[in-house]
Amino acid sequence: MSDAFEADRVKIEAQLDAICASDVVASLPGRLGEAIRYALKSPGKRIRPLLVQLSYRAAGGAGDSSLLACSPEVIHAYSLVHDDLPCMDNDDVRRGRPTVHKVFGNRVAILAGVAMIPLAVRTVRGGALKLDLTSGTTSSILEVLLEGAGAAGMIGGQLRDLSGERLALSLDERESIHAAKTGALISASVWMGALAAGAADAELKAFGSYGRAIGLAFQIMDDVLDITATSSTLGKTTGRDAALGKSTYPALLGVDGARERALSLIDDGLESLAQHGLLTQELTQVANFMVTRTS
Amino acid sequence: MSDAFEADRVKIEAQLDAICASDVVASLPGRLGEAIRYALKSPGKRIRPLLVQLSYRAAGGAGDSSLLACSPEVIHAYSLVHDDLPCMDNDDVRRGRPTVHKVFGNRVAILAGVAMIPLAVRTVRGGALKLDLTSGTTSSILEVLLEGAGAAGMIGGQLRDLSGERLALSLDERESIHAAKTGALISASVWMGALAAGAADAELKAFGSYGRAIGLAFQIMDDVLDITATSSTLGKTTGRDAALGKSTYPALLGVDGARERALSLIDDGLESLAQHGLLTQELTQVANFMVTRTS
Repeated sequence: MSDAFEADRVKIEAQLDAICASDVVASLPGRLGEAIRYALKSPGKRIRPLLVQLSYRAAGGAGDSSLLACSPEVIHAYSLVHDDLPCMDNDDVRRGRPTVHKVFGNRVAILAGVAMIPLAVRTVRGGALKLDLTSGTTSSILEVLLEGAGAAGMIGGQLRDLSGERLALSLDERESIHAAKTGALISASVWMGALAAGAADAELKAFGSYGRAIGLAFQIMDDVLDITATSSTLGKTTGRDAALGKSTYPALLGVDGARERALSLIDDGLESLAQHGLLTQELTQVANFMVTRTS
Repeated sequence: MSDAFEADRVKIEAQLDAICASDVVASLPGRLGEAIRYALKSPGKRIRPLLVQLSYRAAGGAGDSSLLACSPEVIHAYSLVHDDLPCMDNDDVRRGRPTVHKVFGNRVAILAGVAMIPLAVRTVRGGALKLDLTSGTTSSILEVLLEGAGAAGMIGGQLRDLSGERLALSLDERESIHAAKTGALISASVWMGALAAGAADAELKAFGSYGRAIGLAFQIMDDVLDITATSSTLGKTTGRDAALGKSTYPALLGVDGARERALSLIDDGLESLAQHGLLTQELTQVANFMVTRTS
Protein backbone atom coordinates (compact mmCIF):
# COMPACT_ATOMS: atom_id res chain seq x y z
CA MET A 1 0.00 0.00 0.00
CA SER A 2 2.91 2.31 0.71
CA ASP A 3 3.57 3.74 -2.75
CA ALA A 4 0.00 4.65 -3.67
CA PHE A 5 -0.37 6.91 -0.65
CA GLU A 6 3.16 8.21 -0.38
CA ALA A 7 2.21 11.85 -0.86
CA ASP A 8 -0.55 11.59 1.76
CA ARG A 9 1.76 9.88 4.23
CA VAL A 10 4.45 12.51 3.81
CA LYS A 11 1.93 15.22 4.65
CA ILE A 12 0.68 13.27 7.66
CA GLU A 13 4.18 12.80 9.07
CA ALA A 14 4.88 16.50 8.54
CA GLN A 15 1.70 17.43 10.41
CA LEU A 16 2.49 15.01 13.25
CA ASP A 17 5.92 16.66 13.48
CA ALA A 18 4.28 20.07 13.57
CA ILE A 19 1.91 18.95 16.35
CA CYS A 20 4.86 17.64 18.40
CA ALA A 21 6.79 20.85 17.81
CA SER A 22 3.83 23.10 18.68
CA ASP A 23 4.13 25.39 21.69
CA VAL A 24 1.49 23.48 23.63
CA VAL A 25 3.52 20.24 23.43
CA ALA A 26 7.00 21.73 23.48
CA SER A 27 6.32 23.77 26.62
CA LEU A 28 5.14 20.79 28.65
CA PRO A 29 6.93 20.14 31.91
CA GLY A 30 9.26 17.21 32.53
CA ARG A 31 9.33 14.48 29.93
CA LEU A 32 5.65 14.87 29.05
CA GLY A 33 6.25 16.44 25.63
CA GLU A 34 8.96 13.91 24.86
CA ALA A 35 6.61 11.05 25.75
CA ILE A 36 3.87 12.47 23.50
CA ARG A 37 6.33 12.77 20.62
CA TYR A 38 7.59 9.23 21.26
CA ALA A 39 4.01 7.92 21.13
CA LEU A 40 2.87 10.00 18.16
CA LYS A 41 5.96 9.59 16.00
CA SER A 42 6.31 5.88 16.65
CA PRO A 43 6.32 4.23 13.22
CA GLY A 44 2.75 3.36 12.30
CA LYS A 45 0.55 2.59 9.35
CA ARG A 46 -1.40 5.88 9.78
CA ILE A 47 -4.56 4.09 8.67
CA ARG A 48 -6.85 6.54 10.43
CA PRO A 49 -5.34 9.75 8.96
CA LEU A 50 -5.31 8.12 5.52
CA LEU A 51 -8.99 7.27 5.86
CA VAL A 52 -9.85 10.87 6.73
CA GLN A 53 -7.96 12.11 3.67
CA LEU A 54 -9.36 9.50 1.27
CA SER A 55 -12.98 9.81 2.37
CA TYR A 56 -12.63 13.60 2.25
CA ARG A 57 -11.55 13.35 -1.38
CA ALA A 58 -14.14 10.68 -2.23
CA ALA A 59 -16.84 13.01 -0.93
CA GLY A 60 -15.58 15.79 -3.17
CA GLY A 61 -13.27 17.69 -0.83
CA ALA A 62 -10.48 19.59 -2.57
CA GLY A 63 -8.58 21.20 0.33
CA ASP A 64 -5.65 20.00 2.43
CA SER A 65 -7.16 17.73 5.09
CA SER A 66 -3.82 16.46 6.44
CA LEU A 67 -3.95 18.32 9.77
CA LEU A 68 -7.56 17.38 10.50
CA ALA A 69 -6.61 13.83 9.49
CA CYS A 70 -4.08 13.60 12.32
CA SER A 71 -6.69 14.04 15.05
CA PRO A 72 -7.84 10.38 15.19
CA GLU A 73 -4.18 9.33 15.11
CA VAL A 74 -3.59 11.38 18.27
CA ILE A 75 -6.51 9.56 19.94
CA HIS A 76 -5.26 6.22 18.63
CA ALA A 77 -1.74 6.89 19.91
CA TYR A 78 -3.04 7.81 23.39
CA SER A 79 -5.11 4.60 23.49
CA LEU A 80 -2.01 2.51 22.72
CA VAL A 81 -0.06 4.21 25.50
CA HIS A 82 -2.79 3.35 28.02
CA ASP A 83 -3.45 -0.11 26.55
CA ASP A 84 0.15 -1.11 27.17
CA LEU A 85 0.15 -0.08 30.86
CA PRO A 86 0.92 -2.79 33.41
CA CYS A 87 -2.64 -2.70 34.78
CA MET A 88 -4.06 -3.00 31.23
CA ASP A 89 -2.46 -5.30 28.62
CA ASN A 90 0.97 -5.02 30.24
CA ASP A 91 2.94 -4.90 26.98
CA ASP A 92 6.65 -4.08 26.82
CA VAL A 93 7.00 -3.77 23.05
CA ARG A 94 4.91 -1.78 20.60
CA ARG A 95 5.67 -1.22 16.91
CA GLY A 96 9.08 -2.76 17.54
CA ARG A 97 10.06 -0.32 20.29
CA PRO A 98 9.80 -0.33 24.08
CA THR A 99 6.37 0.94 25.12
CA VAL A 100 5.93 4.45 26.54
CA HIS A 101 5.63 3.35 30.17
CA LYS A 102 8.80 1.24 29.81
CA VAL A 103 10.71 4.32 28.67
CA PHE A 104 9.07 7.10 30.69
CA GLY A 105 7.42 5.31 33.62
CA ASN A 106 3.74 4.72 34.41
CA ARG A 107 3.07 8.17 35.78
CA VAL A 108 4.26 10.04 32.68
CA ALA A 109 2.55 7.43 30.44
CA ILE A 110 -0.84 8.00 32.08
CA LEU A 111 -0.53 11.80 32.03
CA ALA A 112 0.84 11.92 28.47
CA GLY A 113 -2.05 9.73 27.31
CA VAL A 114 -4.61 11.93 28.99
CA ALA A 115 -2.98 15.10 27.65
CA MET A 116 -3.37 13.78 24.12
CA ILE A 117 -7.19 13.98 24.32
CA PRO A 118 -7.34 17.79 24.43
CA LEU A 119 -4.46 17.76 21.92
CA ALA A 120 -6.69 15.82 19.51
CA VAL A 121 -9.48 18.36 20.02
CA ARG A 122 -7.02 21.16 19.28
CA THR A 123 -5.96 19.28 16.13
CA VAL A 124 -9.56 19.10 14.95
CA ARG A 125 -9.93 22.82 15.48
CA GLY A 126 -6.68 23.63 13.68
CA GLY A 127 -7.52 21.26 10.83
CA ALA A 128 -11.01 22.69 10.47
CA LEU A 129 -9.60 26.22 10.35
CA LYS A 130 -7.23 25.17 7.58
CA LEU A 131 -10.19 23.83 5.58
CA ASP A 132 -12.26 26.90 6.40
CA LEU A 133 -15.10 24.79 7.84
CA THR A 134 -18.05 26.39 9.64
CA SER A 135 -18.30 26.12 13.45
CA GLY A 136 -21.27 23.81 12.91
CA THR A 137 -19.31 21.35 10.77
CA THR A 138 -16.31 21.55 13.11
CA SER A 139 -18.56 20.80 16.01
CA SER A 140 -20.07 17.74 14.25
CA ILE A 141 -16.61 16.43 13.39
CA LEU A 142 -15.50 16.84 16.97
CA GLU A 143 -18.55 15.00 18.20
CA VAL A 144 -17.88 12.08 15.82
CA LEU A 145 -14.26 11.87 16.97
CA LEU A 146 -15.13 11.97 20.66
CA GLU A 147 -17.95 9.46 20.25
CA GLY A 148 -15.46 7.13 18.60
CA ALA A 149 -12.95 7.70 21.37
CA GLY A 150 -15.39 7.83 24.24
CA ALA A 151 -17.01 5.49 26.66
CA ALA A 152 -19.45 4.07 24.12
CA GLY A 153 -16.60 3.54 21.65
CA MET A 154 -12.97 2.77 22.19
CA ILE A 155 -12.77 3.09 25.97
CA GLY A 156 -15.81 0.90 26.56
CA GLY A 157 -14.46 -1.63 24.07
CA GLN A 158 -11.10 -1.69 25.86
CA LEU A 159 -12.69 -2.52 29.18
CA ARG A 160 -14.92 -5.20 27.69
CA ASP A 161 -11.92 -6.67 25.89
CA LEU A 162 -9.93 -6.79 29.13
CA SER A 163 -12.91 -8.15 31.05
CA GLY A 164 -13.41 -10.82 28.36
CA GLU A 165 -10.02 -12.40 29.01
CA ARG A 166 -10.43 -16.03 30.00
CA LEU A 167 -14.15 -15.88 29.24
CA ALA A 168 -15.83 -17.84 26.45
CA LEU A 169 -17.53 -15.16 24.32
CA SER A 170 -19.89 -15.75 21.43
CA LEU A 171 -19.10 -14.39 17.98
CA ASP A 172 -21.72 -11.67 18.42
CA GLU A 173 -20.20 -10.57 21.72
CA ARG A 174 -16.72 -10.58 20.23
CA GLU A 175 -17.92 -8.59 17.22
CA SER A 176 -19.62 -6.00 19.39
CA ILE A 177 -16.47 -5.56 21.49
CA HIS A 178 -14.34 -5.15 18.39
CA ALA A 179 -16.79 -2.76 16.80
CA ALA A 180 -16.39 -0.57 19.86
CA LYS A 181 -12.69 -1.01 20.56
CA THR A 182 -11.14 -0.51 17.13
CA GLY A 183 -14.03 -0.06 14.75
CA ALA A 184 -15.44 3.06 16.38
CA LEU A 185 -12.36 5.16 15.74
CA ILE A 186 -11.79 3.80 12.23
CA SER A 187 -15.44 4.51 11.34
CA ALA A 188 -15.10 7.94 12.92
CA SER A 189 -12.09 8.69 10.69
CA VAL A 190 -14.05 7.84 7.54
CA TRP A 191 -17.01 9.84 8.75
CA MET A 192 -14.91 12.87 9.69
CA GLY A 193 -13.46 13.11 6.19
CA ALA A 194 -16.91 12.90 4.62
CA LEU A 195 -18.30 15.53 7.03
CA ALA A 196 -15.41 17.88 6.26
CA ALA A 197 -16.20 17.59 2.54
CA GLY A 198 -19.85 18.46 3.24
CA ALA A 199 -21.33 15.06 2.32
CA ALA A 200 -25.14 14.78 2.38
CA ASP A 201 -26.99 12.51 4.83
CA ALA A 202 -27.40 9.53 2.47
CA GLU A 203 -23.73 9.73 1.53
CA LEU A 204 -22.74 9.91 5.19
CA LYS A 205 -24.71 6.76 5.80
CA ALA A 206 -22.82 4.93 3.05
CA PHE A 207 -19.48 6.14 4.42
CA GLY A 208 -20.69 4.93 7.81
CA SER A 209 -21.33 1.40 6.49
CA TYR A 210 -17.96 1.34 4.78
CA GLY A 211 -16.22 2.58 7.93
CA ARG A 212 -17.86 0.00 10.20
CA ALA A 213 -17.06 -2.81 7.77
CA ILE A 214 -13.39 -2.02 7.33
CA GLY A 215 -13.00 -1.26 11.04
CA LEU A 216 -14.23 -4.71 11.96
CA ALA A 217 -12.21 -6.37 9.19
CA PHE A 218 -9.12 -4.60 10.49
CA GLN A 219 -9.63 -5.97 13.98
CA ILE A 220 -10.35 -9.49 12.72
CA MET A 221 -7.04 -9.42 10.87
CA ASP A 222 -5.34 -8.17 14.04
CA ASP A 223 -6.54 -11.34 15.74
CA VAL A 224 -5.36 -13.45 12.79
CA LEU A 225 -1.93 -11.78 12.73
CA ASP A 226 -1.56 -12.36 16.46
CA ILE A 227 -1.47 -16.07 15.53
CA THR A 228 0.17 -16.16 12.10
CA ALA A 229 2.76 -13.37 12.22
CA THR A 230 6.07 -13.39 14.06
CA SER A 231 6.83 -10.85 16.76
CA SER A 232 9.50 -9.20 14.62
CA THR A 233 7.18 -8.67 11.62
CA LEU A 234 4.36 -7.37 13.77
CA GLY A 235 6.56 -5.24 16.01
CA LYS A 236 4.77 -6.45 19.13
CA THR A 237 4.51 -9.63 21.15
CA THR A 238 2.45 -12.25 19.27
CA GLY A 239 0.44 -15.13 20.67
CA ARG A 240 -0.71 -12.95 23.58
CA ASP A 241 -4.43 -13.32 22.88
CA ALA A 242 -4.28 -17.10 23.16
CA ALA A 243 -2.12 -16.83 26.28
CA LEU A 244 -4.71 -14.49 27.80
CA GLY A 245 -7.49 -16.89 26.88
CA LYS A 246 -9.30 -14.31 24.72
CA SER A 247 -12.12 -15.52 22.49
CA THR A 248 -10.59 -14.17 19.28
CA TYR A 249 -11.99 -14.60 15.77
CA PRO A 250 -9.53 -17.35 14.82
CA ALA A 251 -10.42 -19.15 18.07
CA LEU A 252 -14.10 -18.91 17.15
CA LEU A 253 -13.95 -19.38 13.36
CA GLY A 254 -10.48 -20.75 12.62
CA VAL A 255 -7.84 -18.69 10.77
CA ASP A 256 -9.41 -19.29 7.35
CA GLY A 257 -12.94 -18.64 8.62
CA ALA A 258 -11.79 -15.38 10.19
CA ARG A 259 -10.13 -14.27 6.94
CA GLU A 260 -13.33 -15.07 5.01
CA ARG A 261 -15.40 -13.08 7.45
CA ALA A 262 -13.08 -10.09 6.97
CA LEU A 263 -13.27 -10.40 3.16
CA SER A 264 -17.04 -10.55 3.20
CA LEU A 265 -17.22 -7.46 5.41
CA ILE A 266 -14.96 -5.54 3.02
CA ASP A 267 -17.20 -6.54 0.10
CA ASP A 268 -20.27 -5.21 1.90
CA GLY A 269 -18.51 -1.96 2.76
CA LEU A 270 -17.37 -1.33 -0.81
CA GLU A 271 -20.82 -2.18 -2.11
CA SER A 272 -22.50 0.43 0.07
CA LEU A 273 -20.16 3.14 -1.27
CA ALA A 274 -20.57 1.93 -4.86
CA GLN A 275 -24.36 2.20 -4.58
CA HIS A 276 -23.98 5.91 -3.95
CA GLY A 277 -21.32 6.45 -6.60
CA LEU A 278 -18.78 7.20 -3.87
CA LEU A 279 -16.38 4.31 -4.37
CA THR A 280 -12.90 5.47 -5.34
CA GLN A 281 -9.90 3.36 -6.23
CA GLU A 282 -8.17 4.70 -3.12
CA LEU A 283 -10.91 3.56 -0.76
CA THR A 284 -10.92 0.12 -2.43
CA GLN A 285 -7.16 -0.12 -2.01
CA VAL A 286 -7.26 0.73 1.69
CA ALA A 287 -10.07 -1.74 2.28
CA ASN A 288 -8.11 -4.50 0.53
CA PHE A 289 -5.02 -3.61 2.52
CA MET A 290 -7.00 -4.29 5.70
CA VAL A 291 -7.30 -7.97 4.80
CA THR A 292 -3.97 -8.54 3.01
CA ARG A 293 -1.64 -6.80 5.44
CA THR A 294 1.06 -8.84 7.12
CA SER A 295 1.83 -6.44 9.95
CA MET B 1 -21.50 29.31 52.14
CA SER B 2 -24.03 26.51 51.90
CA ASP B 3 -27.27 28.43 52.39
CA ALA B 4 -26.65 31.28 49.98
CA PHE B 5 -26.21 28.94 47.03
CA GLU B 6 -28.67 26.23 48.02
CA ALA B 7 -30.83 26.60 44.90
CA ASP B 8 -27.79 26.50 42.62
CA ARG B 9 -26.41 23.44 44.36
CA VAL B 10 -29.70 21.59 44.10
CA LYS B 11 -29.74 22.16 40.36
CA ILE B 12 -26.12 21.06 40.03
CA GLU B 13 -26.74 17.81 41.90
CA ALA B 14 -29.81 17.15 39.75
CA GLN B 15 -27.76 17.69 36.58
CA LEU B 16 -24.96 15.46 37.85
CA ASP B 17 -27.60 12.78 38.52
CA ALA B 18 -28.96 13.24 35.01
CA ILE B 19 -25.46 12.90 33.52
CA CYS B 20 -24.89 9.67 35.47
CA ALA B 21 -28.29 8.33 34.39
CA SER B 22 -27.77 9.27 30.72
CA ASP B 23 -27.69 6.46 28.16
CA VAL B 24 -24.05 7.04 27.38
CA VAL B 25 -23.04 6.38 31.01
CA ALA B 26 -25.70 3.83 31.89
CA SER B 27 -24.89 1.64 28.89
CA LEU B 28 -21.21 1.36 29.72
CA PRO B 29 -19.79 -2.13 30.11
CA GLY B 30 -18.68 -3.64 33.39
CA ARG B 31 -18.44 -1.31 36.37
CA LEU B 32 -17.37 1.68 34.28
CA GLY B 33 -20.66 3.57 34.64
CA GLU B 34 -20.79 2.79 38.33
CA ALA B 35 -17.24 4.10 38.80
CA ILE B 36 -18.10 7.33 36.96
CA ARG B 37 -21.17 7.82 39.15
CA TYR B 38 -19.11 7.09 42.28
CA ALA B 39 -16.57 9.72 41.22
CA LEU B 40 -19.06 12.34 40.06
CA LYS B 41 -21.54 12.01 42.90
CA SER B 42 -18.91 11.88 45.60
CA PRO B 43 -19.83 14.69 48.03
CA GLY B 44 -18.01 17.83 46.95
CA LYS B 45 -18.10 21.58 47.31
CA ARG B 46 -19.04 21.99 43.61
CA ILE B 47 -16.97 25.17 43.50
CA ARG B 48 -16.41 24.96 39.73
CA PRO B 49 -20.08 24.57 38.73
CA LEU B 50 -21.02 27.36 41.15
CA LEU B 51 -18.45 29.63 39.57
CA VAL B 52 -19.87 28.99 36.09
CA GLN B 53 -23.37 29.83 37.32
CA LEU B 54 -22.35 32.93 39.28
CA SER B 55 -20.13 34.42 36.58
CA TYR B 56 -22.84 33.69 34.03
CA ARG B 57 -25.30 35.72 36.10
CA ALA B 58 -22.76 38.45 36.88
CA ALA B 59 -22.19 38.89 33.13
CA GLY B 60 -25.92 39.30 32.59
CA GLY B 61 -26.97 35.74 31.70
CA ALA B 62 -30.59 34.91 32.51
CA GLY B 63 -30.91 31.28 31.38
CA ASP B 64 -30.36 28.00 33.23
CA SER B 65 -26.63 27.37 33.13
CA SER B 66 -26.68 24.40 35.51
CA LEU B 67 -25.91 21.70 32.91
CA LEU B 68 -23.10 23.66 31.27
CA ALA B 69 -21.83 24.35 34.80
CA CYS B 70 -21.31 20.64 35.44
CA SER B 71 -18.73 20.24 32.68
CA PRO B 72 -15.70 21.47 34.66
CA GLU B 73 -16.88 19.30 37.59
CA VAL B 74 -16.69 16.24 35.31
CA ILE B 75 -13.11 17.19 34.40
CA HIS B 76 -12.31 17.89 38.05
CA ALA B 77 -13.74 14.52 39.12
CA TYR B 78 -11.71 12.65 36.49
CA SER B 79 -8.54 14.42 37.64
CA LEU B 80 -9.14 13.32 41.23
CA VAL B 81 -9.62 9.70 40.13
CA HIS B 82 -6.27 9.74 38.32
CA ASP B 83 -4.53 11.82 41.02
CA ASP B 84 -5.30 9.16 43.61
CA LEU B 85 -3.85 6.25 41.58
CA PRO B 86 -1.00 4.30 43.15
CA CYS B 87 1.49 5.59 40.56
CA MET B 88 0.35 9.19 41.20
CA ASP B 89 -0.43 10.45 44.72
CA ASN B 90 -1.39 6.97 45.92
CA ASP B 91 -4.30 8.08 48.10
CA ASP B 92 -6.77 5.67 49.67
CA VAL B 93 -9.29 8.20 50.95
CA ARG B 94 -10.97 11.08 49.13
CA ARG B 95 -13.82 13.23 50.44
CA GLY B 96 -14.13 10.77 53.32
CA ARG B 97 -14.65 7.71 51.14
CA PRO B 98 -12.35 5.07 49.66
CA THR B 99 -10.88 6.31 46.38
CA VAL B 100 -12.16 4.99 43.05
CA HIS B 101 -9.21 2.67 42.42
CA LYS B 102 -9.59 1.20 45.93
CA VAL B 103 -13.21 0.32 45.14
CA PHE B 104 -13.06 -0.55 41.44
CA GLY B 105 -9.38 -1.38 40.79
CA ASN B 106 -6.73 0.52 38.84
CA ARG B 107 -7.86 -0.60 35.43
CA VAL B 108 -11.44 0.65 35.80
CA ALA B 109 -10.18 3.82 37.53
CA ILE B 110 -7.93 4.73 34.59
CA LEU B 111 -10.59 3.98 31.97
CA ALA B 112 -13.38 5.70 33.90
CA GLY B 113 -11.20 8.79 34.27
CA VAL B 114 -10.39 8.86 30.59
CA ALA B 115 -14.05 8.29 29.64
CA MET B 116 -15.00 11.38 31.62
CA ILE B 117 -13.13 13.69 29.22
CA PRO B 118 -15.48 13.11 26.25
CA LEU B 119 -18.33 13.10 28.79
CA ALA B 120 -17.34 16.64 29.79
CA VAL B 121 -17.33 17.68 26.14
CA ARG B 122 -20.79 16.20 25.74
CA THR B 123 -21.90 18.13 28.83
CA VAL B 124 -20.66 21.39 27.30
CA ARG B 125 -22.61 20.66 24.15
CA GLY B 126 -25.78 19.74 26.04
CA GLY B 127 -25.45 22.76 28.31
CA ALA B 128 -24.87 25.09 25.36
CA LEU B 129 -27.93 23.70 23.60
CA LYS B 130 -30.01 24.39 26.71
CA LEU B 131 -28.82 28.01 26.69
CA ASP B 132 -29.32 28.26 22.94
CA LEU B 133 -25.72 29.37 22.38
CA THR B 134 -24.26 29.71 18.87
CA SER B 135 -21.79 27.10 17.61
CA GLY B 136 -19.11 29.77 17.77
CA THR B 137 -19.69 30.48 21.48
CA THR B 138 -19.99 26.76 22.25
CA SER B 139 -16.70 26.19 20.51
CA SER B 140 -14.98 28.96 22.51
CA ILE B 141 -16.34 27.55 25.77
CA LEU B 142 -15.09 24.10 24.86
CA GLU B 143 -11.67 25.48 24.06
CA VAL B 144 -11.46 27.26 27.43
CA LEU B 145 -12.47 24.09 29.27
CA LEU B 146 -9.99 21.89 27.42
CA GLU B 147 -7.19 24.42 27.80
CA GLY B 148 -7.83 24.39 31.53
CA ALA B 149 -7.86 20.61 31.59
CA GLY B 150 -5.09 20.05 29.08
CA ALA B 151 -1.38 19.68 29.06
CA ALA B 152 -0.70 23.37 29.58
CA GLY B 153 -3.18 23.45 32.48
CA MET B 154 -4.16 20.81 34.96
CA ILE B 155 -2.30 17.83 33.53
CA GLY B 156 0.97 19.70 33.18
CA GLY B 157 0.51 21.07 36.70
CA GLN B 158 -0.08 17.58 38.07
CA LEU B 159 3.17 16.27 36.62
CA ARG B 160 5.16 19.26 37.83
CA ASP B 161 3.59 18.89 41.27
CA LEU B 162 4.55 15.21 41.41
CA SER B 163 8.02 15.95 40.03
CA GLY B 164 8.47 18.71 42.62
CA GLU B 165 8.21 16.29 45.53
CA ARG B 166 11.34 16.42 47.67
CA LEU B 167 12.64 19.39 45.67
CA ALA B 168 13.17 22.86 47.10
CA LEU B 169 11.03 25.10 44.89
CA SER B 170 10.93 28.88 44.95
CA LEU B 171 7.66 30.71 45.57
CA ASP B 172 7.44 31.65 41.89
CA GLU B 173 7.87 28.03 40.83
CA ARG B 174 5.29 26.87 43.36
CA GLU B 175 2.86 29.56 42.22
CA SER B 176 3.24 28.63 38.57
CA ILE B 177 2.61 24.94 39.34
CA HIS B 178 -0.49 25.80 41.34
CA ALA B 179 -1.76 28.19 38.72
CA ALA B 180 -1.62 25.30 36.26
CA LYS B 181 -2.77 22.44 38.48
CA THR B 182 -5.82 23.90 40.18
CA GLY B 183 -6.06 27.48 39.02
CA ALA B 184 -6.46 26.68 35.32
CA LEU B 185 -9.74 24.81 35.75
CA ILE B 186 -11.13 27.28 38.32
CA SER B 187 -10.31 30.20 36.00
CA ALA B 188 -11.80 28.25 33.10
CA SER B 189 -15.06 27.85 35.04
CA VAL B 190 -15.35 31.59 35.64
CA TRP B 191 -14.48 32.32 32.02
CA MET B 192 -16.97 29.76 30.67
CA GLY B 193 -19.86 31.38 32.53
CA ALA B 194 -18.90 34.82 31.26
CA LEU B 195 -18.55 33.53 27.68
CA ALA B 196 -21.96 31.84 27.86
CA ALA B 197 -23.50 35.15 28.91
CA GLY B 198 -21.88 36.89 25.94
CA ALA B 199 -19.45 39.07 27.92
CA ALA B 200 -17.35 41.55 25.92
CA ASP B 201 -13.55 41.30 25.69
CA ALA B 202 -12.76 43.80 28.46
CA GLU B 203 -15.24 42.07 30.76
CA LEU B 204 -13.76 38.67 29.93
CA LYS B 205 -10.36 40.01 30.92
CA ALA B 206 -11.70 41.11 34.32
CA PHE B 207 -13.34 37.72 34.86
CA GLY B 208 -10.00 36.16 33.90
CA SER B 209 -8.13 38.13 36.59
CA TYR B 210 -10.75 37.22 39.16
CA GLY B 211 -10.61 33.54 38.16
CA ARG B 212 -6.82 33.35 38.35
CA ALA B 213 -6.76 35.08 41.72
CA ILE B 214 -9.36 32.88 43.41
CA GLY B 215 -7.91 29.75 41.79
CA LEU B 216 -4.53 30.42 43.30
CA ALA B 217 -6.03 31.44 46.66
CA PHE B 218 -7.96 28.17 46.69
CA GLN B 219 -4.81 26.13 46.21
CA ILE B 220 -2.88 28.10 48.83
CA MET B 221 -5.63 27.32 51.32
CA ASP B 222 -5.45 23.65 50.29
CA ASP B 223 -1.82 23.69 51.37
CA VAL B 224 -2.72 25.46 54.62
CA LEU B 225 -5.53 23.00 55.39
CA ASP B 226 -3.20 20.08 54.75
CA ILE B 227 -1.36 21.32 57.86
CA THR B 228 -4.09 22.81 60.05
CA ALA B 229 -7.13 20.57 59.44
CA THR B 230 -7.71 17.06 60.71
CA SER B 231 -8.18 14.15 58.32
CA SER B 232 -11.81 13.74 59.37
CA THR B 233 -12.74 17.39 58.70
CA LEU B 234 -10.95 17.40 55.37
CA GLY B 235 -12.12 13.96 54.29
CA LYS B 236 -8.66 13.03 53.07
CA THR B 237 -5.30 12.21 54.58
CA THR B 238 -3.66 15.35 55.99
CA GLY B 239 0.03 16.09 56.47
CA ARG B 240 0.84 14.33 53.19
CA ASP B 241 2.53 17.34 51.58
CA ALA B 242 5.08 17.65 54.36
CA ALA B 243 5.62 13.88 54.33
CA LEU B 244 6.27 14.05 50.58
CA GLY B 245 8.68 16.94 51.05
CA LYS B 246 6.64 19.31 48.87
CA SER B 247 7.53 23.01 48.91
CA THR B 248 4.07 24.15 49.90
CA TYR B 249 3.01 27.75 50.62
CA PRO B 250 3.05 27.31 54.39
CA ALA B 251 6.52 25.75 54.09
CA LEU B 252 7.65 28.79 52.11
CA LEU B 253 5.72 31.59 53.84
CA GLY B 254 4.49 30.09 57.12
CA VAL B 255 0.77 29.42 57.76
CA ASP B 256 -0.02 33.08 58.49
CA GLY B 257 2.01 34.32 55.55
CA ALA B 258 0.22 31.89 53.23
CA ARG B 259 -3.19 33.05 54.50
CA GLU B 260 -2.20 36.69 53.92
CA ARG B 261 -1.06 35.90 50.39
CA ALA B 262 -4.44 34.25 49.69
CA LEU B 263 -6.33 37.25 51.12
CA SER B 264 -4.36 39.71 49.05
CA LEU B 265 -5.01 37.69 45.89
CA ILE B 266 -8.74 37.69 46.60
CA ASP B 267 -8.67 41.48 47.06
CA ASP B 268 -6.99 41.93 43.70
CA GLY B 269 -9.48 39.62 41.99
CA LEU B 270 -12.51 41.42 43.43
CA GLU B 271 -10.99 44.78 42.52
CA SER B 272 -10.62 43.83 38.86
CA LEU B 273 -14.31 42.88 38.66
CA ALA B 274 -15.38 46.00 40.57
CA GLN B 275 -13.52 48.21 38.10
CA HIS B 276 -15.77 46.90 35.34
CA GLY B 277 -18.96 47.06 37.39
CA LEU B 278 -19.15 43.26 37.36
CA LEU B 279 -18.71 42.52 41.06
CA THR B 280 -21.75 40.79 42.53
CA GLN B 281 -22.36 39.82 46.12
CA GLU B 282 -22.32 36.18 45.05
CA LEU B 283 -18.87 36.39 43.51
CA THR B 284 -17.58 38.20 46.61
CA GLN B 285 -19.04 35.48 48.82
CA VAL B 286 -17.42 32.65 46.85
CA ALA B 287 -14.08 34.44 46.87
CA ASN B 288 -14.25 34.90 50.62
CA PHE B 289 -15.21 31.28 51.06
CA MET B 290 -11.97 30.33 49.32
CA VAL B 291 -9.94 31.77 52.20
CA THR B 292 -12.23 31.03 55.15
CA ARG B 293 -13.12 27.42 54.37
CA THR B 294 -12.17 24.74 56.87
CA SER B 295 -12.49 21.74 54.56
